Amino acid sequence: MFEEYLSSIEFPQQPSKLYEPISYSLLDGGKRVRPALLLIAADIFGARPEDAMPCAGAVEMFHNFTLLHDDIMDNAAVRRGKSSVHAKWGSNVAILSGDAMVICSYKLLQQAPAGVLPAVMAEFNKMALEVCEGQQFDLDFESREDVSLDEYMNMIRLKTAVLFAGSAKIGGLVAGASPEECELLYAFGLELGMAFQLQDDYLDTYGTADVLGKNIGGDIGEGKKTFLTITALNEAGAATRRAMLATFNEKKLPLGHKMGRIKTIYNSLDVPEITRREVKKYLDSATAALGKLEAGGRDVTLLREMVDALANRNK
Amino acid sequence: MFEEYLSSIEFPQQPSKLYEPISYSLLDGGKRVRPALLLIAADIFGARPEDAMPCAGAVEMFHNFTLLHDDIMDNAAVRRGKSSVHAKWGSNVAILSGDAMVICSYKLLQQAPAGVLPAVMAEFNKMALEVCEGQQFDLDFESREDVSLDEYMNMIRLKTAVLFAGSAKIGGLVAGASPEECELLYAFGLELGMAFQLQDDYLDTYGTADVLGKNIGGDIGEGKKTFLTITALNEAGAATRRAMLATFNEKKLPLGHKMGRIKTIYNSLDVPEITRREVKKYLDSATAALGKLEAGGRDVTLLREMVDALANRNK
Repeated sequence: MFEEYLSSIEFPQQPSKLYEPISYSLLDGGKRVRPALLLIAADIFGARPEDAMPCAGAVEMFHNFTLLHDDIMDNAAVRRGKSSVHAKWGSNVAILSGDAMVICSYKLLQQAPAGVLPAVMAEFNKMALEVCEGQQFDLDFESREDVSLDEYMNMIRLKTAVLFAGSAKIGGLVAGASPEECELLYAFGLELGMAFQLQDDYLDTYGTADVLGKNIGGDIGEGKKTFLTITALNEAGAATRRAMLATFNEKKLPLGHKMGRIKTIYNSLDVPEITRREVKKYLDSATAALGKLEAGGRDVTLLREMVDALANRNK
Repeated sequence: MFEEYLSSIEFPQQPSKLYEPISYSLLDGGKRVRPALLLIAADIFGARPEDAMPCAGAVEMFHNFTLLHDDIMDNAAVRRGKSSVHAKWGSNVAILSGDAMVICSYKLLQQAPAGVLPAVMAEFNKMALEVCEGQQFDLDFESREDVSLDEYMNMIRLKTAVLFAGSAKIGGLVAGASPEECELLYAFGLELGMAFQLQDDYLDTYGTADVLGKNIGGDIGEGKKTFLTITALNEAGAATRRAMLATFNEKKLPLGHKMGRIKTIYNSLDVPEITRREVKKYLDSATAALGKLEAGGRDVTLLREMVDALANRNK
């Protein structure tokens, strides 16, 4: 139903270079986790679907805007198996159509019931700005060798988890849930989002390309800071640490070889298990937040199912 | 007072590369025409200054965001006598801090009184998206030789004039002006904005660099489509037209010589006078809209003074 809603959003025909990239990036089979979270949260607290749907569209539109602009900054040519917008149309078109997407997300948000609009907007704005902060920290980390695990966790909280948290909370706001319930939804989304990002880190190294629908090993190839890298550097002795950094810096080493060496190090340091435990920790916290909502008499079955689905995701 | 308000907006310290460029570009002495328009319109209809001020901040923030991203797209190294953000910090920082500025403008907008927030947001969103459309048309025109005057006027309406129009109307909305009065404010702002952009076109060729605080002749140097170019091409006979296009295409001709030749052609075709007449036409239409507001019992003195100031502007 959400997919139909997204497809039904109409854009002007002209200028085509402004609007074509929006449909192109919006309707390309994303997982739609954030709008699902918002719609389920809204449903639990009794919102009318037509009141929640535009807000769900807004968070998905905003998420896709961030991907579009991130791809320019990362010079990424491929997104979800297709050319990225900047690879297909050039960076000027990508900048400007991304800008238009932000505004389009506010056009959707503006359709929230007038009574909750100020609260919905405040939450959306806070969340959106934090996502920008997270992206800037991520860019800052590229040129740093001393990123701590705390700094990394804070970065992914901002870049990824707050969008989950805000989506869940906006669902509650649209439905007129109490402030306490909204905060529980926020906490739930935040923990879920943290787990989601750590799984992304894990799958980029330990996933299966065919299942993921994208190449794996990108993080290792680019020497990106991830939960896995930073944990390995923390756990390693001086010699292993040197070997690891040397492997990352060997620019000419084919990716397959590089991945083999790095995975051997990760495995020797128990990094996969540490990561899985960390994911579980966040999923357990998410479940705990659901328990409190349930204690308040809410049927959180669908949110529990989301946790289970994420717990078992391999893509 | 508005300048103090802008300076008082607080941004987080970190990440510094996200927030420093915002203050840098916001507090560098723009003309503040759009917020002035909003504040005066709001004042005329009796809004409390504290209700209108955040909306005035929002339109100025949004305007400065468009300059920031336009400078990336135009590869412009200088803005208001300083390095542009992308020249100083690189294009990734410029893209992302621009994105943050859009969101910051909505954070300001969100402070509008709750009762008018839906209407204010609807107007802001429409205006903001049209500005993106105008910028895309402007980019499209770069690679076209056959841009008609109608297309050009529509482009500047979107890129420049709707931001004036929307600012004036939002001032009215905040003050609770009637729908008819809001439309008159919109019409006033639109005509004023058209005149403003045509004057920009004029001053880029016929202004004085010292007074303007920037180099003149940029439009001619880059072969940009402006009201002057298009009017000249429309007025010229075949031979003059060929001479003009040949001059624009002479890449190695020093700017001074190029300007000399083009101005000679413009002058022979009466382009300066045609442009001044067109500016006057729009200013007269703006004044006519004020007359209708006045007939409704409003004191539009300050808006008349804006028209007079713009009529005589040389920078």
